[in-house]
Amino acid sequence: MSRTIAILGGTGPAGVGLALRWARAGETVVVGSRSVERAQEAVAKIRERAGAGAKVTGEENAAACAGSDLLVLTVPFEGQAALLKQLKPAFRPNSILIDATVPLASSVGGRASRMLGVWQGSAAQQAAELVPKGVTVVGAFHNASADVMNGDDPVECDVLVCSDDPEATKVVMELAAKIPGVRGIDAGKLENARIVEQITALLIGLNIRHKGHGGIRITGLPETSYRSS
Amino acid sequence: MSRTIAILGGTGPAGVGLALRWARAGETVVVGSRSVERAQEAVAKIRERAGAGAKVTGEENAAACAGSDLLVLTVPFEGQAALLKQLKPAFRPNSILIDATVPLASSVGGRASRMLGVWQGSAAQQAAELVPKGVTVVGAFHNASADVMNGDDPVECDVLVCSDDPEATKVVMELAAKIPGVRGIDAGKLENARIVEQITALLIGLNIRHKGHGGIRITGLPETSYRSS
Repeated sequence: MSRTIAILGGTGPAGVGLALRWARAGETVVVGSRSVERAQEAVAKIRERAGAGAKVTGEENAAACAGSDLLVLTVPFEGQAALLKQLKPAFRPNSILIDATVPLASSVGGRASRMLGVWQGSAAQQAAELVPKGVTVVGAFHNASADVMNGDDPVECDVLVCSDDPEATKVVMELAAKIPGVRGIDAGKLENARIVEQITALLIGLNIRHKGHGGIRITGLPETSYRSS
Repeated sequence: MSRTIAILGGTGPAGVGLALRWARAGETVVVGSRSVERAQEAVAKIRERAGAGAKVTGEENAAACAGSDLLVLTVPFEGQAALLKQLKPAFRPNSILIDATVPLASSVGGRASRMLGVWQGSAAQQAAELVPKGVTVVGAFHNASADVMNGDDPVECDVLVCSDDPEATKVVMELAAKIPGVRGIDAGKLENARIVEQITALLIGLNIRHKGHGGIRITGLPETSYRSS
């Protein structure tokens, strides 16, 4: 299996956390950044943690995007639209873009425990409007704490996967299940990202209030609803 | 302790489930309804399940409201504003109103997995605008499955409590912890009900998709953040 996961805007805590976890799971990961140097700095840190055998490299965002058909977007919301517009010519046809963006009010100087209203309903739906035709957007990986993702313990969090393409949902649920502790759950259509994104603001509020690293678990669904490692 | 919990609009599955669980915990509960007869029918069913010693009675909503300073509102969203306006003269000063209303799109013929936009931000904030001055609104009990609440098993769900009054939050967390399996969590200000209410729509969508009775757990907070029985 020669699949490469490209994490665009991947040098922040969210991107590095995912890269670290997938590298440890043996996946081939490309960290994308505005600058190759920053990407390679992030890669060096990931290799240190995941071991020298980790298949992680760093590239400029456009090169990372052009080199893979399994993409993850982990930028702050204020950078999402600009990056997607810039990358438009770089997308491979039929690629999957996993959008983990959360429209926190902190994007415009507000609180990270509050949300912005996005015209399309969610950051994921905004992404769907900005990618070329044929690219499938999947909303996922919004809720797991970046601190926990960047640690060594299992991640006590379910990943709710929203997409209008059941095959893409399946791929992303499998990627989620590569992270110890995580369970992937099919949360239905892309529009449901409206709610899943907001849960992040709720968890950030809980973290501030209770000094924790909150995550969520969905209880009460049949075992077959969950994809775990 | 002579506290009485009045559940207004309490003859539906959400109200009966709470009444049943609190009756079993030894609390004194009044089920309110538009008609005394319907309230008493609900009470008969609750007594059958909770035992003859259960301290549950039925009353018309206004009488139930006037007779207690610990109130719970469990009506469909389309009935919330009208009931609160009707009850306005009945509220005791300094009472606590726990609002469990969720503005599901099904209130206006849409899907129960989608939400309505509420001008005030959430049903709980709408309630706060409609109650007399001095009444404290607390948003809570949105997410636990009514089916599970009406059963005999522990309820695998956390109750996120939102209020601008820390003392009221404490009271409601304690009420939550009376239900086996439930943990009460201080989720901060009333405005956070915006997100907590939406989680219900997400869970309803998951229930439809996966044929389950979904609930949520918050992971990763210190033990002291949770109030459980």
